[in-house]
Amino acid sequence: MLDLIRTLAVENTTKIVLLSLDGLGGLPRPETGRSEMESARLPNLSALASASACGLLRHVAPGITPGSGPGHLGLFGYDPLAFQVGRGVLEALGIEFDLRAGDLAARGNFCTIDAAGLITDRRAGRIATDVCVRLTERLRTIRLPGVEVLVEPVKEHRFVLVLRGPGLAGGLSETDPQALGKAPLPVRALSSAANHTAELVNAFIIEARKRLADAAPANMILLRGFDQLPELPRFPEVYAMRAAAIAAYPMYRGLAKLVGMDVLKTGGTFADEIATLREHWAAYDFFFVHYKDTDKAGEDGDFDAKVQALERFDTFIPAIREMGADVIVVSGDHATPSVLAAHGWQPVPVLVWSRYCGADPVTAFTERACASGTLGLLPAHHLMPLIMANALRLTKFGA
Amino acid sequence: MLDLIRTLAVENTTKIVLLSLDGLGGLPRPETGRSEMESARLPNLSALASASACGLLRHVAPGITPGSGPGHLGLFGYDPLAFQVGRGVLEALGIEFDLRAGDLAARGNFCTIDAAGLITDRRAGRIATDVCVRLTERLRTIRLPGVEVLVEPVKEHRFVLVLRGPGLAGGLSETDPQALGKAPLPVRALSSAANHTAELVNAFIIEARKRLADAAPANMILLRGFDQLPELPRFPEVYAMRAAAIAAYPMYRGLAKLVGMDVLKTGGTFADEIATLREHWAAYDFFFVHYKDTDKAGEDGDFDAKVQALERFDTFIPAIREMGADVIVVSGDHATPSVLAAHGWQPVPVLVWSRYCGADPVTAFTERACASGTLGLLPAHHLMPLIMANALRLTKFGA
Repeated sequence: MLDLIRTLAVENTTKIVLLSLDGLGGLPRPETGRSEMESARLPNLSALASASACGLLRHVAPGITPGSGPGHLGLFGYDPLAFQVGRGVLEALGIEFDLRAGDLAARGNFCTIDAAGLITDRRAGRIATDVCVRLTERLRTIRLPGVEVLVEPVKEHRFVLVLRGPGLAGGLSETDPQALGKAPLPVRALSSAANHTAELVNAFIIEARKRLADAAPANMILLRGFDQLPELPRFPEVYAMRAAAIAAYPMYRGLAKLVGMDVLKTGGTFADEIATLREHWAAYDFFFVHYKDTDKAGEDGDFDAKVQALERFDTFIPAIREMGADVIVVSGDHATPSVLAAHGWQPVPVLVWSRYCGADPVTAFTERACASGTLGLLPAHHLMPLIMANALRLTKFGA
Repeated sequence: MLDLIRTLAVENTTKIVLLSLDGLGGLPRPETGRSEMESARLPNLSALASASACGLLRHVAPGITPGSGPGHLGLFGYDPLAFQVGRGVLEALGIEFDLRAGDLAARGNFCTIDAAGLITDRRAGRIATDVCVRLTERLRTIRLPGVEVLVEPVKEHRFVLVLRGPGLAGGLSETDPQALGKAPLPVRALSSAANHTAELVNAFIIEARKRLADAAPANMILLRGFDQLPELPRFPEVYAMRAAAIAAYPMYRGLAKLVGMDVLKTGGTFADEIATLREHWAAYDFFFVHYKDTDKAGEDGDFDAKVQALERFDTFIPAIREMGADVIVVSGDHATPSVLAAHGWQPVPVLVWSRYCGADPVTAFTERACASGTLGLLPAHHLMPLIMANALRLTKFGA
């Protein structure tokens, strides 16, 4: 499909704003029977939905809960099942680590082992982040033949390991036996191309155990999600657009960078993001703007906070509309229902506003209302072609 | 899917009429908020829709605007992404050129080059069609070794080039550099199978330049869309039906012929087409009947003319129903919204009437009403199996 789009994409002067509310969709609260979106007062989104074509996005497949990686790849038009990004790479993107082509990245946990070398705590009692920082400094002193060893703390017991050098390959088994009372596993190469990499990683693990011997509870490490940067078709080339990403959180900046968008410097609030949008309005054709608060509240299981996050977002809609975009799209990367306090598998509401979006009966931006919109239930990676069409940036297929 | 249908198709005495309104779907006019279909008085179509199952057809994919070729292949049950027909072939079909298996067809433009051989007008100032006719006569005098050279004028600066002979292959790059101030490109073979063909075409181009040297502004040619007739499964065999096409315009006759339908001789008006339908009623099981006026008005951006074209079509419905078909289907090959003045990507309304079509709440034949029909949003190439089922011409799948 991306190959088809690439052949049909044409340039135009139209401008597109894609607003992604992280964890947008929700579920009804049992007491009221109304979801977060149905409970919030969203006058600006309702007005926009009334003038838009509405529907629901499914990012992966029925019943599949997307992580942030697949969720955003879907929004960007990449089938998340065809373009998979390993956990190590996502973790590195999440701390805005400058991962390069050929680097091998893994997600690391500090853990606790007993005198026999058996795991007694897979997360080392969730050590404080500053302890994690000190211990990753020890791991950085490890030397391996022919490759550079890079170790970055993340949060609490989590870190990222990156090996940089020639001949590295992904496709290694994980070292976490996923059970207490067992020893960490050595990694195994899942194909012969990864044999050399497996040797290097196993050497790293042996050295790490030595350097952490006196650091209980964080006296050992577990590694998983070994992967390299995937080669993704570049968004600006596929769609023939100058594309910019505006996101306060590193993970989303990383995902946008992964597909080749320009990542704009912005502040920590959504007001900062909108100011950034206004500043760079002339320089780009396409803007991806990320709003985090909805997901955060949902993950915390805080229904009221999610309602408030939605209402706060709603107040920015007039300012966004005033900039004069030709196409405005509002959706999200996955649902985060407060009653689940986690990502959910539910389809995510979407609205597409343009001069050519067509008549649609939906007058409210909610899960239930969007279910009867004219866009129907759409694979998320089909949204970008639809956006491009509304921006008059696709020529016809066949004569 | 066609292979499956072929194994399930059974004969019956039921009759099917598929009415294709070219460019059927539209968009609301901003002044009224109502589309062409919503503005037109369509009492007969409304009555038919009330007794039908309704829905929307999507011919290619969300956001993709179908050309007439993919649009009709979809209606005939062929996935337009799996069965692609090159521009040269479509252009030849469009003038009802007798293209044969193995022929190589290309779309040609006369263009203007300066003394240095650089393009100054990619369409030669859109020369009059009679000039085009005279210049194609010059090109017909070109001789190439081992193949016949056929050149046919189309309209204004457009012509069709066909090479006929053994060993020809499609898969050549186009010669249009898509920019002024550049020289026309030689064709390149996109695979080694096309090397010989590329040599022949390049020899033709050199000769064409000589023969057109004094014919400014049409003193050079550009060629693209090189392709051969695709081998499509034959419609009458796949569906086990005697199938006839009734269309006043050559392009649609050509597309029907491409899939193996009998193309019936008819006059230039829709009344002529309906008379042809009545005449041949006994001889066929399936009739594809094409109505062009809706597309023409939409392409002209003439909202009122499209409304009138719909209303004119509506008056023929009683006569069609009187013939006693078992299944009547009304849809189109793509949308042509008047506000776009071009083909659009919007899904196209469809109604399927038969004794077995099922209860459906839709009582008007419009984009918005059909969006809540029981057929839902259907890939166009899934319509034919549905039609066959309604005609009791498909046996069950699995015991």
